[in-house]
Amino acid sequence: MVGQIKRFLVGKPIATEQQRHHRLSRRTALAVLSSDALSSVAYATEAILAVLILAGTAAFEVALPIGAAIAVLILVVGFSYRQTIRAYPQGGGGYIVARENLGETSGLIAAGALLIDYVLTVAVAISAGVAAITSLAGNVGMPGLTNYSVEIALFFTALVTLVNLRGVKESGGGGIFALPTYAFIACILLLIGFGIFRSVTVGVTPVVHSVAPPLPEATQALGIWLLLRAFAAGCTALTGIEAISDGVPLFRVPESRNAATTLGWMVLILVTMFLGVTWLAYTHGALPNELTHETVISQMARTIFGVGPVYVAIQVATALILVLAANTAFADFPRLASFLSRDRFLPRQFASRGDRLVFSNGIVVLGMFSALLVILFNANEIAMLPLYAIGVFISFTLSQSGMVQRHLRLREEGWQRGALISGIGATLTAIVMVVLAVTKFTHGAWMVLLMIPFLVLLFRGIRRHYEHVAEQLSLSGAPRPVPLRRHTAIVLVSGIHRGVLPALQYARSIAPDNATAVYVNLDPEQTEKISTRWCDWGCEVPLVVLESPYRSLLTPLMRYIDEMDTRYSDDVITIVLPEFVPAHWWEHILHNQTGLLIKTALMFRKGKVVTSVPYRLEK
Amino acid sequence: MVGQIKRFLVGKPIATEQQRHHRLSRRTALAVLSSDALSSVAYATEAILAVLILAGTAAFEVALPIGAAIAVLILVVGFSYRQTIRAYPQGGGGYIVARENLGETSGLIAAGALLIDYVLTVAVAISAGVAAITSLAGNVGMPGLTNYSVEIALFFTALVTLVNLRGVKESGGGGIFALPTYAFIACILLLIGFGIFRSVTVGVTPVVHSVAPPLPEATQALGIWLLLRAFAAGCTALTGIEAISDGVPLFRVPESRNAATTLGWMVLILVTMFLGVTWLAYTHGALPNELTHETVISQMARTIFGVGPVYVAIQVATALILVLAANTAFADFPRLASFLSRDRFLPRQFASRGDRLVFSNGIVVLGMFSALLVILFNANEIAMLPLYAIGVFISFTLSQSGMVQRHLRLREEGWQRGALISGIGATLTAIVMVVLAVTKFTHGAWMVLLMIPFLVLLFRGIRRHYEHVAEQLSLSGAPRPVPLRRHTAIVLVSGIHRGVLPALQYARSIAPDNATAVYVNLDPEQTEKISTRWCDWGCEVPLVVLESPYRSLLTPLMRYIDEMDTRYSDDVITIVLPEFVPAHWWEHILHNQTGLLIKTALMFRKGKVVTSVPYRLEK
Repeated sequence: MVGQIKRFLVGKPIATEQQRHHRLSRRTALAVLSSDALSSVAYATEAILAVLILAGTAAFEVALPIGAAIAVLILVVGFSYRQTIRAYPQGGGGYIVARENLGETSGLIAAGALLIDYVLTVAVAISAGVAAITSLAGNVGMPGLTNYSVEIALFFTALVTLVNLRGVKESGGGGIFALPTYAFIACILLLIGFGIFRSVTVGVTPVVHSVAPPLPEATQALGIWLLLRAFAAGCTALTGIEAISDGVPLFRVPESRNAATTLGWMVLILVTMFLGVTWLAYTHGALPNELTHETVISQMARTIFGVGPVYVAIQVATALILVLAANTAFADFPRLASFLSRDRFLPRQFASRGDRLVFSNGIVVLGMFSALLVILFNANEIAMLPLYAIGVFISFTLSQSGMVQRHLRLREEGWQRGALISGIGATLTAIVMVVLAVTKFTHGAWMVLLMIPFLVLLFRGIRRHYEHVAEQLSLSGAPRPVPLRRHTAIVLVSGIHRGVLPALQYARSIAPDNATAVYVNLDPEQTEKISTRWCDWGCEVPLVVLESPYRSLLTPLMRYIDEMDTRYSDDVITIVLPEFVPAHWWEHILHNQTGLLIKTALMFRKGKVVTSVPYRLEK
Repeated sequence: MVGQIKRFLVGKPIATEQQRHHRLSRRTALAVLSSDALSSVAYATEAILAVLILAGTAAFEVALPIGAAIAVLILVVGFSYRQTIRAYPQGGGGYIVARENLGETSGLIAAGALLIDYVLTVAVAISAGVAAITSLAGNVGMPGLTNYSVEIALFFTALVTLVNLRGVKESGGGGIFALPTYAFIACILLLIGFGIFRSVTVGVTPVVHSVAPPLPEATQALGIWLLLRAFAAGCTALTGIEAISDGVPLFRVPESRNAATTLGWMVLILVTMFLGVTWLAYTHGALPNELTHETVISQMARTIFGVGPVYVAIQVATALILVLAANTAFADFPRLASFLSRDRFLPRQFASRGDRLVFSNGIVVLGMFSALLVILFNANEIAMLPLYAIGVFISFTLSQSGMVQRHLRLREEGWQRGALISGIGATLTAIVMVVLAVTKFTHGAWMVLLMIPFLVLLFRGIRRHYEHVAEQLSLSGAPRPVPLRRHTAIVLVSGIHRGVLPALQYARSIAPDNATAVYVNLDPEQTEKISTRWCDWGCEVPLVVLESPYRSLLTPLMRYIDEMDTRYSDDVITIVLPEFVPAHWWEHILHNQTGLLIKTALMFRKGKVVTSVPYRLEK
């Protein structure tokens, strides 16, 4: 039955030989690989304003210079990542680049930071997508939908998890993935274009709030600290920028050239949209509204276009690209987990492909952690942002430092230029990383900064365990096994009935001279009855009755087994458990689960063989 | 580790021989056995008012005649139950009396009704206790505590569950149990006495509400329907009245006489308190307040005594007796479940005593269901009351009808008088039962009326299953087991390593000529390596490689096992699983749980013997 539900949800298994790589055209690749980066336009500006508002709305005027600084950062990082694309045509994720050039520890730090960030990508993107939908709902007469944000976000998380478990060909080779990205780009460019056009022709219409947001008194002066915090908040615009360099092998030949071109386009589009939206928000006086929970994008879209088809299209496209961005994390996280698992830093289950050829375990784990974050943060993406981006910048810094190291080591043609570019990128992102860590520390970044070393320790611990196991299982120097000399069999009986007979028979066949049946006395009356009737059926196997003053089955049994163990030194002891199997699985609950209990207890005993002899009931 | 946590929470095991029955004095028995009945004073009056308010506060004047009618009912049922006490000195619960005199179906109906009611007793009593505490908190400057009602109620449910798992001697033979009951009786009598005294001397001070309750418009006229509903709501005062007749063996000799006297006292105290509280509520204009959630008792107590030590004492005593009432259900439910289990109407686990000599499984199940109710009803006891009491009245009616039947059958001395008393009781409670079912039907009673037949069917289904099993396991006519002729052993290997060697050796020892090793090809490279190296270590046991196009381990394995099965007809097939046991239990998560998976799959196969040969890792 469980199997049928799984088949219905996940689909029929796919054969291994059907695995193949879809190559993507630049146009499709841009859509598939940049949804994460581009979708951050939906919340990055709002994140900046949410900080600046602490110094009053007058402080909004610095949003533009902050936006410009972030745009420069995007261009530098983008340019620097073209180096990585060229150097790692097989895909250069932060883990691989850092590990290869800076050593294992750096690689593991990058991996830990990225895993955390992928979980946050899902939670942030889905929450922001839900915010786009509830903002839309609020403007078409359904303001109550905000109350169900968490439920809707969990629904989408489950949906994306399920879609990925079904395995949409290589995380999407098709047009369904191109559509939301291009629709979003078109919508945002239209918004910016028409916004500028209207400003020039009829002038700016300021945003009107249905419920005015509670403006906090400008408690803080606009000092350097607040400026840095606002800058750090905006840096979430850079998340996802590394996706293309991870996915170089997905491009058509020449892979590196195509990927580099696509990265260039993406950076250009991202910078345009981000600056445009920030400028619009500033000129139109859009601001985060804690009461209506309406997003800044929604505020501007309805002010510029009015609540009509264009407004609806913008909101829907925003929601779609955000869900798509979450979807890309569902390709990245399981892939990185499988790399780590292959290198034995994570449990090996992460490396095995499920029925549908996807890394099912990674997908399920990502889905669960994201759902947890959605619940903990009430599906409020602005509240999650302080945790976000820090992991990405750690990975940026390590990856680009790795590239510097690589240039210095290999000294390929043009290495000086490459090292310079990567060096500038690494230095800049390192500075931003420190700014992020310091300014966001008390707002939640401390959790991430604690989690990363914890993960590194965990990775190493897991690796050490697997190494120990491999050592112990190694056959080098193992003694040649000698044939077994003597069998001792102990049959645990719960009474005299048909279910016991096959077990007694089995025990006699493997240990003709050394088989005993054991019964624990829990009820003297029953024990008496069994002792007297025993010889009618099982006299060849003598019955031993064990006393149990505390009504425990296990304690006297284990003591008896230990005693038997000391009797011969050259024997192997087999514990034979008669198990009757009910006709229907749900009938198990009607029987004591003693068999399972005994097996579990014996597993922690040294070297006892446990044999289950079933007796199957027919009805 | 799990064991240690359990020991810490539940305590050390207690030996069977330490089991003994504590006999209770009348004074202690009154406290222990009547807490459930007496505690209903805390909410029964409020339940009546909550219905009457629908016809406006003017309708409150009928609260007094309704209270009087319920008082008469209490006296009749109490008097009738003295018959049961005399007839069943070994304890006459509804299940036993109905089953013995009216047949199995009636017994099971009574049992189902009582199990449901015990769950409700816990949920209602604990929720009402929490209401007493939050009302107190609201009057001493902590009105916010109502927001945590559910959490507090769940905490108390867990606490009572835990205390009962530890097993306080026979559900309390001691003074700790006497204290809350007598404190509650004293507090309520003091409240009534001082209330009357003040009314006579200085006149009545009406109740003042900190936040005036929203008075619904008197939408309904005070017709017969509303009268009946109010009466039905008040009938919750009768719950728990049967507890003394269930617990006759707990009394000192002469048990029946002592129990009957105690029942008389309890009925007298209950009627006095219930009528007094109802009169006070009417004269002082107390009424259910949906906004502050303050209980009617709290309203009167603070009006009459002011917010001071006496008021606090009343609230604390009320909360304590309610928790104690919940505690008695934790003795009743597991005991009834153990009776049903002994008669094979419930899984046998309910009949076995745990480490601490208590029926642990019944306690845990009761705790879980009550917690579920608390969550579903938001710890609002007034909302739960429509489900409550109906089960009790079904049990009253069946039990007293059973007594009539018994008198008619046995015709002992004075049987005419006894039959008359029980007959009047049965008729009255039957009428009330119908009134309850009809008036409360749409308010939730339908759930209970659906659950009872469902439970009866479940009981019968379980009984039928156990009968089938007993039949099939019976040795009468079983063929004499013949010695096994031939062994076939199949060793499942996951590679070549030390963990596999003992399993190969074991397989050879039990099936020297018919042992094969099986390996599923999931990775052609690995398979190649193993095939070539196999003969170095295991050539005596030939290796069979199975193909698996869908990367499934189970499917090809099961197919192979089925094939082997057809080869000989007189052999037994043993599946040998090499299992390496990590040094620490938590390391299991780092290894594929394939062993467990295979065992589960084989369990549903016909007659295969499964043997685990462990290889224990040292670090």
